[in-house]
Amino acid sequence: MKRFRQRLHRQLDPQAWPAGGLSPINVALVIAILVATISAIVQTEPRLSQDYSETFRVLELTLGFLFGVEYLARLWTIVEREPHRSPGRQRIQYALRPAALLDLFTVVVTLLPLITVNVMALRLIRLLRILRLAKLGRMSAAMRLLYDVVNSRRYELGVTLALTIAVLILGATALYWIEGSLQPEQFGSIPRALWWAVITLTTIGYGDAYPITAAGKFVAGIVAITGIGLIAMPTGILASAFSEAVRKR
Amino acid sequence: MKRFRQRLHRQLDPQAWPAGGLSPINVALVIAILVATISAIVQTEPRLSQDYSETFRVLELTLGFLFGVEYLARLWTIVEREPHRSPGRQRIQYALRPAALLDLFTVVVTLLPLITVNVMALRLIRLLRILRLAKLGRMSAAMRLLYDVVNSRRYELGVTLALTIAVLILGATALYWIEGSLQPEQFGSIPRALWWAVITLTTIGYGDAYPITAAGKFVAGIVAITGIGLIAMPTGILASAFSEAVRKR
Amino acid sequence: MKRFRQRLHRQLDPQAWPAGGLSPINVALVIAILVATISAIVQTEPRLSQDYSETFRVLELTLGFLFGVEYLARLWTIVEREPHRSPGRQRIQYALRPAALLDLFTVVVTLLPLITVNVMALRLIRLLRILRLAKLGRMSAAMRLLYDVVNSRRYELGVTLALTIAVLILGATALYWIEGSLQPEQFGSIPRALWWAVITLTTIGYGDAYPITAAGKFVAGIVAITGIGLIAMPTGILASAFSEAVRKR
Amino acid sequence: MKRFRQRLHRQLDPQAWPAGGLSPINVALVIAILVATISAIVQTEPRLSQDYSETFRVLELTLGFLFGVEYLARLWTIVEREPHRSPGRQRIQYALRPAALLDLFTVVVTLLPLITVNVMALRLIRLLRILRLAKLGRMSAAMRLLYDVVNSRRYELGVTLALTIAVLILGATALYWIEGSLQPEQFGSIPRALWWAVITLTTIGYGDAYPITAAGKFVAGIVAITGIGLIAMPTGILASAFSEAVRKR
Repeated sequence: MKRFRQRLHRQLDPQAWPAGGLSPINVALVIAILVATISAIVQTEPRLSQDYSETFRVLELTLGFLFGVEYLARLWTIVEREPHRSPGRQRIQYALRPAALLDLFTVVVTLLPLITVNVMALRLIRLLRILRLAKLGRMSAAMRLLYDVVNSRRYELGVTLALTIAVLILGATALYWIEGSLQPEQFGSIPRALWWAVITLTTIGYGDAYPITAAGKFVAGIVAITGIGLIAMPTGILASAFSEAVRKR
Repeated sequence: MKRFRQRLHRQLDPQAWPAGGLSPINVALVIAILVATISAIVQTEPRLSQDYSETFRVLELTLGFLFGVEYLARLWTIVEREPHRSPGRQRIQYALRPAALLDLFTVVVTLLPLITVNVMALRLIRLLRILRLAKLGRMSAAMRLLYDVVNSRRYELGVTLALTIAVLILGATALYWIEGSLQPEQFGSIPRALWWAVITLTTIGYGDAYPITAAGKFVAGIVAITGIGLIAMPTGILASAFSEAVRKR
Repeated sequence: MKRFRQRLHRQLDPQAWPAGGLSPINVALVIAILVATISAIVQTEPRLSQDYSETFRVLELTLGFLFGVEYLARLWTIVEREPHRSPGRQRIQYALRPAALLDLFTVVVTLLPLITVNVMALRLIRLLRILRLAKLGRMSAAMRLLYDVVNSRRYELGVTLALTIAVLILGATALYWIEGSLQPEQFGSIPRALWWAVITLTTIGYGDAYPITAAGKFVAGIVAITGIGLIAMPTGILASAFSEAVRKR
Repeated sequence: MKRFRQRLHRQLDPQAWPAGGLSPINVALVIAILVATISAIVQTEPRLSQDYSETFRVLELTLGFLFGVEYLARLWTIVEREPHRSPGRQRIQYALRPAALLDLFTVVVTLLPLITVNVMALRLIRLLRILRLAKLGRMSAAMRLLYDVVNSRRYELGVTLALTIAVLILGATALYWIEGSLQPEQFGSIPRALWWAVITLTTIGYGDAYPITAAGKFVAGIVAITGIGLIAMPTGILASAFSEAVRKR
């Protein structure tokens, strides 16, 4: 019994797994979480949730049962982490962690559909558990690198963001003046014109708002070309930061 | 009295603040400027300015009063900057600076709404004051880095801009020839076709103008793919310039 | 006869060609493959395939005949690769390779139009043969560099992709909540909102789906600006990886 | 007379000008060329060319006269370049150069409007003369740097272009299969679907063609995200090439 708990703990706790990467059980759990997430996303589509309501109900109950068993298994094996401490206190401490409470709540809500809460948020939060499971290995080294790179250039990126906001406000104000009375729905106020400015500067261009006068098009053209420069900025900043971070290692 | 003035000066003048970053009073002023800017932007929206007209009036008067007090406090404490010079001449010199005149004018216009001028421009110019307050610290080092980087590559960026303008003119001329008679509103003249060219080359693509013939689509496709190359250029230039600038420090 | 086979083998087998680049016959074959591909693409256009049906039929038969002769020539000359092995076994071994079977099948289908299969896929697969022919020379060195660069940063690029998917799901869920009941066709389910999220985050912005409420526009604006950051990421990662790969050589 | 010709030659010939940059006369000529180009572009707009037809006629004749004088001045001073050669042969040699013939033809066409040819192309070609005048100085060093950078990575950029074309063909074929019968105007043939693919992969997204089925949207989403990677590629390649080129200097 004790040996089984030890082996199960090694499988469940990413930090206890001796080999590189994830243990087979954690790989299965990551897949189960992905399936649960995709199922949660797909079920919001009325046509599918009606046609396959039975399939989804079975899938949800199966996944709920699986995550319930996982929850109990983690509670049982957690004492293996620090074998010399009192098992009861360790389990209570584990159960009271926000992450564990969330896990428990999600399982209860899934298995007892009597409580009809909007469980979409809960289902998506499950995705965060992948992060917890994947904390080790090369993937997390890459995560740390990305975080360090962005962090080391936070002032430069902040200045670029401030510049972008300044261009957004200037562009929106200009078009509010030029086309505000012609297209009140699109440019009748600066907040409305800001929507146009964001969609233009990010080069998305839905086409729901665009200038129709020569002056408006001229200003929009300048904003558009400035936008290219403002997109080039953070890319250049991050590229040099990556080069530096990689050289340091 | 003299000690209070010294302490107030240290709070108001970014260069006099001994610790890093901004003084508490200047942080409060930056927040007040941001609130004033957002208020100015939001008030242009007719629905909001009508429903909350009283709220906006109180907010504007409060902010006007606050900036008025700030103006007087700066005028009073400026003499601490160079204690050995004549206080009167220092104050007059300060008051006649364009930035201080603008501050005074904005305050007067806000507090005396009798003068009904279009004060939008004045309100947005307030944002520049954040720049003046934030002149110190790491943010301004990042600003200088960005400026140096762009400046050190101004010829390369200039050539890229010239190339972009050449592609814009070539593309617009081609589509004016190909689709000018078919879609006179969109391509009936080169200036009109230039609007299409700018919106295409910056990859915005509103959808108000696009070719409909096979020949037009072929030329537009080439312009579009060239556009990707022209966006890659400044990014590559800035990335290498950042790498170089960071290495030098 | 033996000498002619040797010379033909040197022409046909890219690895046997002593000079750099491609042999004249392989250059001709690359051109023939490109012509065949363009012909296959153009023929799907009903107007052209009807007006020039005779031209296309002649072109297809000519190309089919040419590739048939090439197939037989390769089968005949393959024994020159390893002159000491049994010619029969070498030819059977060559003929049974998936690539050779595909070549044969494509030729047969082209020359015997009695078998009316949808041969579009077969025709496009021909393009892969260019890769096989172009395996040597500087082009393939560039290919290997690109592959190495992407491969050396697969974890960083993977994390960026995971982040992108997370932003996609978050943005789609937010707009499903905000605009799901207002625009059921566009945001009535998370899968539908995901289409909007992908087209927005990649800055394409067709304009078939966009938010119309203030709250929806606010969230979309944040997603749009985040999108710029997520595009800057892989560019920065690849730029630094290229710098490193080039320095190593 | 000889001294005046020498001084004029120093002004007209960029290579003869002793100080850095352009000579005052060449600066004036660059401005005149820009004015002529903008005038040529603006005149294609029917509303403007009708309302200001007299202004444009005077401007065109003035510019034509100016460029005529310039042509004669260059013909007269060219002998100063190599003072020991025969003036007559030098002038004939200069006059027969394609660039000089084009200059003469443009002048004649502008001053003798009897010959009603479509002179738009001629007018735009004038822009190339700016390149000839600006051949010296730091601008041309930047031009050479850009050219060297692109040239040094032509194989990598070529492979990226080939990859892009492959993704374009694959994506277009997929959507032709999925949506060809549903939206024949947009996806009824691969050439038509290619227009959609180019506008999507370059992230322009006019909105004249987009998938409407779930399968089509899924494939389009993959193409869109691949597009981001394909845009990141050339940027990364150019960034590393710039870093290398700058380091070498």
